[in-house]
Amino acid sequence: MVRVAVDTMGGDFAPAEIIKGAIQAAGEGIETILVGPETLIRQELKYYDITNLSLQIVSANEVIHNNESPIVALRQKPESSVAVAVNLVKNGIADAMVSMGSTGAVMACAKEVLGVLKGMRRPVMGGVLFGFAPHTLVFDMGANVDCKPQQLLGFGALGCAVMKTMHGISNPTVGILSNGVEEGKGNRLVKETYPLLKNSGMNFIGNIEASDIPAGRVNVVVCDGFTGNVLIKIVESMGWIIAEQIRKRLDGKIAEAEIRTIESELIAATDVTNCKGGGMLYGVDGVIVKGHGRYKAREVNNAIHYADMLIQKNLLQTIKFELSKYASEVADVIPTQ
Amino acid sequence: MVRVAVDTMGGDFAPAEIIKGAIQAAGEGIETILVGPETLIRQELKYYDITNLSLQIVSANEVIHNNESPIVALRQKPESSVAVAVNLVKNGIADAMVSMGSTGAVMACAKEVLGVLKGMRRPVMGGVLFGFAPHTLVFDMGANVDCKPQQLLGFGALGCAVMKTMHGISNPTVGILSNGVEEGKGNRLVKETYPLLKNSGMNFIGNIEASDIPAGRVNVVVCDGFTGNVLIKIVESMGWIIAEQIRKRLDGKIAEAEIRTIESELIAATDVTNCKGGGMLYGVDGVIVKGHGRYKAREVNNAIHYADMLIQKNLLQTIKFELSKYASEVADVIPTQ
Repeated sequence: MVRVAVDTMGGDFAPAEIIKGAIQAAGEGIETILVGPETLIRQELKYYDITNLSLQIVSANEVIHNNESPIVALRQKPESSVAVAVNLVKNGIADAMVSMGSTGAVMACAKEVLGVLKGMRRPVMGGVLFGFAPHTLVFDMGANVDCKPQQLLGFGALGCAVMKTMHGISNPTVGILSNGVEEGKGNRLVKETYPLLKNSGMNFIGNIEASDIPAGRVNVVVCDGFTGNVLIKIVESMGWIIAEQIRKRLDGKIAEAEIRTIESELIAATDVTNCKGGGMLYGVDGVIVKGHGRYKAREVNNAIHYADMLIQKNLLQTIKFELSKYASEVADVIPTQ
Repeated sequence: MVRVAVDTMGGDFAPAEIIKGAIQAAGEGIETILVGPETLIRQELKYYDITNLSLQIVSANEVIHNNESPIVALRQKPESSVAVAVNLVKNGIADAMVSMGSTGAVMACAKEVLGVLKGMRRPVMGGVLFGFAPHTLVFDMGANVDCKPQQLLGFGALGCAVMKTMHGISNPTVGILSNGVEEGKGNRLVKETYPLLKNSGMNFIGNIEASDIPAGRVNVVVCDGFTGNVLIKIVESMGWIIAEQIRKRLDGKIAEAEIRTIESELIAATDVTNCKGGGMLYGVDGVIVKGHGRYKAREVNNAIHYADMLIQKNLLQTIKFELSKYASEVADVIPTQ
């Protein structure tokens, strides 16, 4: 049985909704470890019938807030719920950890406690960018804003592991995001990364353009985290604005329920991270799932199930295996402080 | 009366549709100079009544094709229609030039013949990214893939000139595209550019995120041309795919005409460059409008009218004036070969 540590103090609806979601997950067969102030947790548990549920409590009496500097907070609060939960993974007491808390704190903590994988400088965020192209993943969409070519090679390996494990695609195509498809196009980083990917043994299809992502023309897109961040934010915000415009046009012309379907499909396609059950924090030596701060019980439960699936599918081991193929190329990528 | 040179040989429907569009513009009061092989042009003109129209022909007997290397082609074909037309601007015989030909050839030719403005390394492409935010411009969306901070300062000045002249906004806000709004966020280029913009005297609002563009929270967005290219291509391709999905949902439920309206509004909002009447090639010392290769007579006419408006509004002079404010900062930006 998979054991998932849950940071009960992270998120807008902590601890009530987090604990509620964790109880649901425990009821569905996942061993759940509630991490947070014990008295508070016990108080919440009173509202539920938890007999026969696989629920544990691990006490953690400090909380990191969204407005704190993650690095400083982690140093000052070694007993924070997020730090204690990550340490459970580190020490093999939990197989995975789920938090709805501050992204910065979860990232900083995962990096410091678990360490990053070889070839990584920092944790990596990635996944599906546009829901209508469900087998096209983008790495990095996070904190690796200035990258070395070797990091992009690592993102490619990471993406291949995710495609193979989670999408069942045995020989995923890999492309590097550029401003034109021809070899030789690109900024300095792209031009330097190109030969690394070309000689990597990956199913490298060369430069791709941003339009190839919605069209689903490639499985794994590598780019620096600055560009990936621009991508995810433009896609997400366009979805909301287009949905609003379409609602205006359709109002009163078709049934409200149909408008809602169109809207929710569009939002699900463009705001993928917020709509699915949490995202894995890649590139660290452990399975950490970061859910959105807005998550309520149902989404928290989804995020815990997602962590469970990641463990069952052995994703972390596959990532390590794929990265190990490039051990010599990525040897000089040093984790940042 | 504004005199516009038209490259009759550039574009998928050249010369017939280009000449047809130019005749329409001439009929609407713009002095039009048709540049291309004289016999071919005269043959086309036979189909129209051109008495009393302000139409001239300037002979140019070579043509640059889309599959040619622009630089090589320009050297080998000094009598190409695009080169001759740009030279008419250079020599003051035309006020502006319009071409539907290869972007590379038009850019290379404009740069070589007219030269770039101080502070620019190459021509700059830019404009509205998302039609639902019509007063938010992005510079660069073109060939300046690896930028120095001083170039981004120049893009800011350029954007301010366009906002003031063409949008009637006297004190436009300027933001730098980053991966977070806080000062200190960003990649190396953003961090180095930030203080330049902060001290520029522009109405600088700091870092903006990609989501601020569709939301229209800023007038001028500066970024390197690599990032800008990613933006324009993701927006454009998402528009087409979302339109297709929405059509599927609405088919048979509302009138076909209404579906078409929704589709065409969406495409107009996301595929702005292709939908409006041509875009100015910024950063060169002359007014050059590049229309899409697919343009037919109506769009060619629009592009010529757009060139006419640019001249009437004195945009190029305003750009030079805005750039001159930063003459010392941008002094070491050297045009590329």
